[in-house]
Amino acid sequence: MFGARRLLRVLRSCSCSSAPCPRPKPAAKLSVREALRAQNSNGERVKVQGWIRSVRSQKEVLFLHVNDGSSLESLQVVADSNFDSRELAFGSSVEVYGKLVKSPAKRQNVELKAEKIEVVGNCDLKDFPFKYKERPPLEYLRQFPHLRCRTNALGSILRVRSEATAAIHSFFKDSGFVHIHTPIITSNDCEGAGELFQVEPSSKIKVPEENFFDVPAFLTVSGQLHLEVMSGAFTQVFTFGPTFRAENSQSRRHLAEFYMVEAEISFIESLQDLMQVMEGLFKSATMMVLSNCPEDVELCHKFMAPGQKDRLEHMLKNNFLIISYTEAVEILKQASQNFTFTPEWGVDLHTEHEKYLVKHCGNVPVFVINYPLALKPFYMRDNEDGPQHTVAAVDLLVPGVGELFGGSLREERYHFLEQRLASSGLTEAYQWYLDLRRFGSVPHGGFGMGFERYLQCILGIDNIKDVIPFPRFTHSCLL
Amino acid sequence: MFGARRLLRVLRSCSCSSAPCPRPKPAAKLSVREALRAQNSNGERVKVQGWIRSVRSQKEVLFLHVNDGSSLESLQVVADSNFDSRELAFGSSVEVYGKLVKSPAKRQNVELKAEKIEVVGNCDLKDFPFKYKERPPLEYLRQFPHLRCRTNALGSILRVRSEATAAIHSFFKDSGFVHIHTPIITSNDCEGAGELFQVEPSSKIKVPEENFFDVPAFLTVSGQLHLEVMSGAFTQVFTFGPTFRAENSQSRRHLAEFYMVEAEISFIESLQDLMQVMEGLFKSATMMVLSNCPEDVELCHKFMAPGQKDRLEHMLKNNFLIISYTEAVEILKQASQNFTFTPEWGVDLHTEHEKYLVKHCGNVPVFVINYPLALKPFYMRDNEDGPQHTVAAVDLLVPGVGELFGGSLREERYHFLEQRLASSGLTEAYQWYLDLRRFGSVPHGGFGMGFERYLQCILGIDNIKDVIPFPRFTHSCLL
Repeated sequence: MFGARRLLRVLRSCSCSSAPCPRPKPAAKLSVREALRAQNSNGERVKVQGWIRSVRSQKEVLFLHVNDGSSLESLQVVADSNFDSRELAFGSSVEVYGKLVKSPAKRQNVELKAEKIEVVGNCDLKDFPFKYKERPPLEYLRQFPHLRCRTNALGSILRVRSEATAAIHSFFKDSGFVHIHTPIITSNDCEGAGELFQVEPSSKIKVPEENFFDVPAFLTVSGQLHLEVMSGAFTQVFTFGPTFRAENSQSRRHLAEFYMVEAEISFIESLQDLMQVMEGLFKSATMMVLSNCPEDVELCHKFMAPGQKDRLEHMLKNNFLIISYTEAVEILKQASQNFTFTPEWGVDLHTEHEKYLVKHCGNVPVFVINYPLALKPFYMRDNEDGPQHTVAAVDLLVPGVGELFGGSLREERYHFLEQRLASSGLTEAYQWYLDLRRFGSVPHGGFGMGFERYLQCILGIDNIKDVIPFPRFTHSCLL
Repeated sequence: MFGARRLLRVLRSCSCSSAPCPRPKPAAKLSVREALRAQNSNGERVKVQGWIRSVRSQKEVLFLHVNDGSSLESLQVVADSNFDSRELAFGSSVEVYGKLVKSPAKRQNVELKAEKIEVVGNCDLKDFPFKYKERPPLEYLRQFPHLRCRTNALGSILRVRSEATAAIHSFFKDSGFVHIHTPIITSNDCEGAGELFQVEPSSKIKVPEENFFDVPAFLTVSGQLHLEVMSGAFTQVFTFGPTFRAENSQSRRHLAEFYMVEAEISFIESLQDLMQVMEGLFKSATMMVLSNCPEDVELCHKFMAPGQKDRLEHMLKNNFLIISYTEAVEILKQASQNFTFTPEWGVDLHTEHEKYLVKHCGNVPVFVINYPLALKPFYMRDNEDGPQHTVAAVDLLVPGVGELFGGSLREERYHFLEQRLASSGLTEAYQWYLDLRRFGSVPHGGFGMGFERYLQCILGIDNIKDVIPFPRFTHSCLL
């Protein structure tokens, strides 16, 4: 029943009976996107394959919309009404042969005048969780991780994700960065950033004191330290891969498995230089996404985040702002708003504080720089200031999402780093890291950007689970 | 001592004493690659930063070679001999200001006439494991995972890896594929491909019967099944990410963590169509790498794999061959060579067989198709042939490496798949997978390519541990 190729009806393109029948040119296979963009649609014979998104049957004409995921827009297929059949239904897969012609309708340039329609696979509509013309909320779609990509909403989000991935790779490649695959399994935990996932062969996971790698091994929380290794040979490196946190969080901004874009730059001497790359990355990747899949972005803005279009334009056309942590705390202290956590110098900023700061800055992304040394990990560069002792750290806060980037200059001075490691009792574990400062050390710095948060930020998607193909979080690892 | 910026000497570019001293234009910062490619090297003032690769001191002139990882070639710096200092040594990092001038030497177009040289970070030569002009074997370098990227050999390999990554992304993007991040942590094990790594929070890993995700969760061995989910909405998808095997192997072709390039194509009806994409990917990515970093590839071919240049050209200029599994077994049976494992229909091909077949085919990559159904996982498409029952599977064997790609048409017919799952006792676990065939199923197929093996194949690198930045294998997870 399923997948069986079933020829419905064939309108013979060649019905001559006496003259010898010339063999028709084989139909060119086109994606829906290619068909929609065809310039000279003067009757060339083509083949288009995809899934039926709508069926409209009129007295003499049958209209189908066929989508193959190459674009949000479907191709309108126009057929004689005797093509109609129960099998030509929402969700079925079809192969359509016919001629591309100029469409009389306003909404599209071309349409496909069908000569032959084959149903490739039926759709069991009784059990299919999506219905024609319905626009169920994203939360509903999450129940069907194996099917939700077939909706317009997830289709658009995933195409944007793919374009954004390409845009980020382009940005770095065009700027001369070398791409590095930092390891997923690692024997060090970078910065004690929350709880780690540990890894062992499944047959031995509950066997005490046995380690596949001889040492306990964890899923990476950041590729930074490994990028720093590379930044001793290449002056500009980046990585773009999965990172992990074993945190018991169901928040709309956290996942157990998420993607990070991380970069490290050698011979960089100020946060200013670093912030320039961060702002450049955000703006250039976003412009590229907007130019390559405007319809997909528009769908999200229109149906899922009204007002987001203007908010994004506002972010893109303004220079990002810079304030120091100390200034940020002053702003928060003078705020009329009552916070759950009282703002105080030396204490971490909370989400409520970040939100206030962004709003205070006119909903333009804002860099907060120079955090208290005591709050930050050992590798951040000591500003040697006083009386309030800070490090050259930077976070970028953006409207709606909060912290999007985190970065810092790294402590490249051997003796400074040695003391910081010693005071944290980490000297032995990080001997190799200290080593990097013994052989041609250079001032350097880098940053990481949460990729899903970036997508949330540009699309205005509220829940992080909707911008990743297969979300993983506590109590949930579907498929 | 380290990282301290130390001004050695300044040749004042402006030594006039009476006339007011015009402020010199700030020097443009150039990468070594940019400096080497500078067309009009008529004395513009530039700044170049990097690490010293060689120092040659003559009576009146000092020659330095400075490298910053942007290319294999270093920039020759020419300075007055009174610049000489013990700190200007192999491995030190420097910042050089000066003028780019046409070089009288044959080996380079331009050289940098130094006006100022700053040592940024000294190199502790006593402990630095690499020496000037030495070319230690790759095996030696593996002992220093945090430093080996500073050698010419690893520098070249990692630049090639970065270019190959970009080339693969380009190939798919230009062909209209949507990029998908398939999950790293998964609750299904795809095909029982060897032992899996299991994942739990480190604090609870040894606690029986407790699971962070409520179910046992593993590191992925392949993104195929998740790509198949996507191929029900997008007709062409690909993924390029880490995959894992918890196998106790120290072989030169296996790692516990390695990268796979996987693609899935809908509405594909023959292995022929699939093989065309595989061959296209191999050839187009390789051509792009050869054109973007010829010097790096040449270094590998010259010093690590003599003869590889010709072997690779031979692969690129010939059409890949196709033989059936049945033909392959016949060839092996008629071979004069004695095999450790006797070739027999119904038994897997071993490495020795693969090697023989490739040689037999004139050292051109060869596709072996249509394997015994009993040897292959449930998802491969039944050829419904007889008397020897096969599935539409394909492996690509390449010289030196053996199996580089594996792929198949997938069983898209509901009832066929249902029976295969039932006979393996997998029906319940793969209900979601079966579901994909209930709602507009389409014929489809895909493949996976081991990325490290691909690099081994084009560069002629014998050990897989040398083509990945941080190799992970049993007993070893350094850094």
